[in-house]
Amino acid sequence: MSLPLGKADVATTPTTRRLLRFGQIGYGYWGPLMLRNLARQENAEVVLLADLSEKRLADAERNHPGLATTNDTAKVLDDPQIDAVYIATPLGTHFDLARQALTAGKHVLVEKPLTGASAEARELIALAAEKELVLMVGHTFEYSPEVEYLRQLHISGELGRTYYINSSRLNLGIFRRDADVIWDLAPHDLSMINYIMGMKPQAVSARGASCVHDGLIDVAYIDLKYPENIIAHVHVSWLNPNKERRFTIVGDRRMVCYDDTAGNEKIKVYDRGVDRPDYASTFGEFQLSYRYGEIVIPFVQGSEPLAVECQHFAEAIRTGKAPRSDGEVGLTVVRTLEAAHDSIAQGGIYIDTNF
Amino acid sequence: MSLPLGKADVATTPTTRRLLRFGQIGYGYWGPLMLRNLARQENAEVVLLADLSEKRLADAERNHPGLATTNDTAKVLDDPQIDAVYIATPLGTHFDLARQALTAGKHVLVEKPLTGASAEARELIALAAEKELVLMVGHTFEYSPEVEYLRQLHISGELGRTYYINSSRLNLGIFRRDADVIWDLAPHDLSMINYIMGMKPQAVSARGASCVHDGLIDVAYIDLKYPENIIAHVHVSWLNPNKERRFTIVGDRRMVCYDDTAGNEKIKVYDRGVDRPDYASTFGEFQLSYRYGEIVIPFVQGSEPLAVECQHFAEAIRTGKAPRSDGEVGLTVVRTLEAAHDSIAQGGIYIDTNF
Amino acid sequence: MSLPLGKADVATTPTTRRLLRFGQIGYGYWGPLMLRNLARQENAEVVLLADLSEKRLADAERNHPGLATTNDTAKVLDDPQIDAVYIATPLGTHFDLARQALTAGKHVLVEKPLTGASAEARELIALAAEKELVLMVGHTFEYSPEVEYLRQLHISGELGRTYYINSSRLNLGIFRRDADVIWDLAPHDLSMINYIMGMKPQAVSARGASCVHDGLIDVAYIDLKYPENIIAHVHVSWLNPNKERRFTIVGDRRMVCYDDTAGNEKIKVYDRGVDRPDYASTFGEFQLSYRYGEIVIPFVQGSEPLAVECQHFAEAIRTGKAPRSDGEVGLTVVRTLEAAHDSIAQGGIYIDTNF
Amino acid sequence: MSLPLGKADVATTPTTRRLLRFGQIGYGYWGPLMLRNLARQENAEVVLLADLSEKRLADAERNHPGLATTNDTAKVLDDPQIDAVYIATPLGTHFDLARQALTAGKHVLVEKPLTGASAEARELIALAAEKELVLMVGHTFEYSPEVEYLRQLHISGELGRTYYINSSRLNLGIFRRDADVIWDLAPHDLSMINYIMGMKPQAVSARGASCVHDGLIDVAYIDLKYPENIIAHVHVSWLNPNKERRFTIVGDRRMVCYDDTAGNEKIKVYDRGVDRPDYASTFGEFQLSYRYGEIVIPFVQGSEPLAVECQHFAEAIRTGKAPRSDGEVGLTVVRTLEAAHDSIAQGGIYIDTNF
Repeated sequence: MSLPLGKADVATTPTTRRLLRFGQIGYGYWGPLMLRNLARQENAEVVLLADLSEKRLADAERNHPGLATTNDTAKVLDDPQIDAVYIATPLGTHFDLARQALTAGKHVLVEKPLTGASAEARELIALAAEKELVLMVGHTFEYSPEVEYLRQLHISGELGRTYYINSSRLNLGIFRRDADVIWDLAPHDLSMINYIMGMKPQAVSARGASCVHDGLIDVAYIDLKYPENIIAHVHVSWLNPNKERRFTIVGDRRMVCYDDTAGNEKIKVYDRGVDRPDYASTFGEFQLSYRYGEIVIPFVQGSEPLAVECQHFAEAIRTGKAPRSDGEVGLTVVRTLEAAHDSIAQGGIYIDTNF
Repeated sequence: MSLPLGKADVATTPTTRRLLRFGQIGYGYWGPLMLRNLARQENAEVVLLADLSEKRLADAERNHPGLATTNDTAKVLDDPQIDAVYIATPLGTHFDLARQALTAGKHVLVEKPLTGASAEARELIALAAEKELVLMVGHTFEYSPEVEYLRQLHISGELGRTYYINSSRLNLGIFRRDADVIWDLAPHDLSMINYIMGMKPQAVSARGASCVHDGLIDVAYIDLKYPENIIAHVHVSWLNPNKERRFTIVGDRRMVCYDDTAGNEKIKVYDRGVDRPDYASTFGEFQLSYRYGEIVIPFVQGSEPLAVECQHFAEAIRTGKAPRSDGEVGLTVVRTLEAAHDSIAQGGIYIDTNF
Repeated sequence: MSLPLGKADVATTPTTRRLLRFGQIGYGYWGPLMLRNLARQENAEVVLLADLSEKRLADAERNHPGLATTNDTAKVLDDPQIDAVYIATPLGTHFDLARQALTAGKHVLVEKPLTGASAEARELIALAAEKELVLMVGHTFEYSPEVEYLRQLHISGELGRTYYINSSRLNLGIFRRDADVIWDLAPHDLSMINYIMGMKPQAVSARGASCVHDGLIDVAYIDLKYPENIIAHVHVSWLNPNKERRFTIVGDRRMVCYDDTAGNEKIKVYDRGVDRPDYASTFGEFQLSYRYGEIVIPFVQGSEPLAVECQHFAEAIRTGKAPRSDGEVGLTVVRTLEAAHDSIAQGGIYIDTNF
Repeated sequence: MSLPLGKADVATTPTTRRLLRFGQIGYGYWGPLMLRNLARQENAEVVLLADLSEKRLADAERNHPGLATTNDTAKVLDDPQIDAVYIATPLGTHFDLARQALTAGKHVLVEKPLTGASAEARELIALAAEKELVLMVGHTFEYSPEVEYLRQLHISGELGRTYYINSSRLNLGIFRRDADVIWDLAPHDLSMINYIMGMKPQAVSARGASCVHDGLIDVAYIDLKYPENIIAHVHVSWLNPNKERRFTIVGDRRMVCYDDTAGNEKIKVYDRGVDRPDYASTFGEFQLSYRYGEIVIPFVQGSEPLAVECQHFAEAIRTGKAPRSDGEVGLTVVRTLEAAHDSIAQGGIYIDTNF
């Protein structure tokens, strides 16, 4: 296979690269990872970090000597020097903080999922459009070289017609209080499927269980109907003995598995499939033959998805071009998560997403 | 862990071991495997094999010099010498053949699934009871040492309270005409879960797709509700690039994975879990702690499940004791498969099994 | 890669396929496997099996109804009906039995290693030449599709110039009395290397230890010098916790690993290497660059090596063409094993093989 | 198994913890890793870093704002404020720099291997003793939790009597100019074996090849004789298609494999072995039985070996207690590497280490 390796991000760069000043709100799980990447960019600086926890701010200061910090988020929103704000707070606060930042004339990058409700996501999209500001959601995997490789594989036609997609994201722990396992883990799978296929789900069915904590779903199974009769299945769990990250696309020409835990052999492309005769057989036996061919493990040049994501955000601000994971992309995921919860509440029936 | 290794089968043996004479109908996929095992037993012989295909009969004769064969199934059913009949024909014929065999006064072992409809299974159960004959279904995995190990692990309390069970049975091919992937593969998973847990599912929800053949489901996802809030998920597919046989039980004390493709390391018992405090916390943070302990790969003495199954059938005939996988056990699987199909037809809602 | 898959054996078939009558001496480890394959061939039959053990003969009779057996090996050697003899006895008896069989005018296939001393192997070669009979040694791996694939990969130049070969053959147990671990396991590795590379080793160095049994080596390391500065290393052990069968060829264009325990992914071809500049660098830093490319797992059509080996033996008898693993090939392995033992006795120095 | 998990380092801490001032020479491969760990310690600071490369110094300054740097190593050696020096320069300079540092009254930690010749190592040991200064070598693996686990496993007797040890350390690349693959990689394996077993090798035999660069060995096999008839084999290569780090100890009670690339399942303890009868058998058959028991993957609490190593160095300085990897330990490895080279030059014969 001579498929070009995933070029994660090639933006046209304007001649003048104006200095960008970032503010950041939140320094929990994603905060430290992104702060380092935001700070590392050329012609950019992080001027103020806000978090409610003094301990976290102290950590940030130790890691970033000279960084200005505050426990008052309003200070970030009010600072006229700040061009853009990165929000990495609990899900319940995404909407309010993003709305305030946009209202204050700042570009906004919000951690996934964009908001806790689709109506909120729609309001942010409208506000950003009105203010002509960048609204981006941190769908990290859309900036990973492996996911880009899968996308190019799909686009190139190497896989043929897609039959179905299967994704599992399982591990033990990292329980959250602000979100259940669906809101916590499924945004990754959904954004990956949507980005790779270039499609939005039409209907969602889900089942889940609260094993350890009453009322908080910690294992869930989500089924999705996409256009062209493609189906997808997503399994997320906080209660698996080992970490599992497996993503399979089954096409009629080839099949591909992406196992994010498999070191240097993450992607395997299987030249396997089922050959169906063109004519309608009138014979009693199926006229099917199985094709077993070689497996290719492509060499995908590693790159840090968060660094690409930060650079992409900066480019979007500088060029005015809509980012890959813009508000609409974030809304699609939020609406799908909402529909999954509706389905669980209604006994697992398919809920239309109405995109 | 000092758990006793699975003793697959220890039956009390009557003093007199009368010679058993078997007839067999069907020599396709399971037929050759079972014929060899039926013939190998002490005090037993296979006196007649029937199959519609001359080619298959010729194969059987080459493998078993001296074996009597016929393409007329009635010859097996009518032969007064034959004590018991093993039926390994397409699913659509199971009921008729089993009924005729029971009516003719013969003990019956039918390949899985028992019948294509629960009403038929009930009729066979009633007939066998009336005639005081053994009716057994070939749920192979109930006779495997690994499944017995998992069952003992559950019974011993080592796993604690079960949260959920996940099973996948995926491969490329072996399409069938007489049954879709649910009837073909899911009987294995369902019989394993039921046997290990000693439970029957209460409600079933399923989704599936016909990717390669119109109208014949080749990939499916089945969700099951068991008593005590246990849930199970079964994923079956004829369209996966590689063979996958993974069975996971997540308990609150331990978790266990059974990967049937993992050579000599099929079972891994994880001393891992989530510790939840007894008192209701009033604090903002979850009072959960994760427990990571050692993983044990038990040494499970290998034994051939089909050989155990054959011996078990013979013992049931000789002792009159109900076999492990009797008609009721077979009915449970058939009824669950039926409910899965009803759920698919009704958009994925949960269907009560009404056991 | 468009390398043709290994065609294990395509012999030109003479028009008249005369019936071949085999005798077999020995029914221990290899005996049962080969008897089945010898018997399965078209226009061939096994007319008499000899073994000293009544128990083994009884086993053979159960598996092959109608087979004539004897505990007197002379009966096989004297039987004028028998065209060819397969010898699968302890190593110490190979030479005598093979010599008697050849003297009696019979074609001979001897299990590996051919003899326990190179002088004996040379005598058998001379005798077979004089009598115009086939002398073949059972180097099973030379008839396996994976080894044929590696050979074609080497011949095609895909791997470039070979740097070194590494082979390990480890497991727990199967201790033998008639041979130590070097004579027991290393013939596989040596015959594989010689066949794939089309070369004979020039010098041998070895080290070993007797861990469990005094005087009988159960773990050994063998280093070999081949022409063109190629080196090879063979590690054999009866004392490893798990089974390991790993064979690596490192070339300057590509590298290949063959892991015989890896299910359907036994061979991996790595498009990896080190690029060295043509000119002599005067700079302080090495002008080396590493090339990391894709990994290909070819689909190698499975075939039973023993069946191919039997067919090959029959073809050699019918056509008079020298078999692939003829006496010379067997001698090469025997002489190398001898030199390895000499090296151990002399503190690990390299011993010339003097081929 | 109830073996206590490896407690990597528990030193008695003196009441007064005086501030330690470190100087560092060298900022290549190990330098950046250690600088971060030296700087992170409590009551310690790195006051000056020397490196000949301006580019590397600029990197260091970016990573450690405020760090003083110089390209004049004498400045570190002459600085009266500096208590201790960490040397991470090419091997050829270890001896001179360490001698100067000790002469200047500074405690010294030198990267592995300690020196390029055993005479030099002996001189450093004498000098440190005379000056009453700490001389330590950076045998990283002696501070890793997995190696500590293996050591405790050996000491506890769980493995029984050790038969042999096998270690492979293979990868593609990281060629060096200052040392061949033996000096580059084998110090890890040797220090691990010596530390785990509490022994020194008595004799060494080696073979190697220069595949890519004339005169520089890039693949080598080293055999070692230890007391109590224990043998060890070390395979190192810069030319393997994939990274391999496998370390096996075969004992007569248990066997253990440590695969450093195996994520969270690095160590597997096999309850397997060969049972030998006490009495001398007069029968023809070996009276051996194989024991196949469970495999345990212990949970080894992760800790950063370099952090433990830095802390250990500081403790040795504060307490005056000899460090675990002191000059003698470093000398043992250097002398063994020397003997390996002598063996290669003499055709692979065993060279006595003369410890």
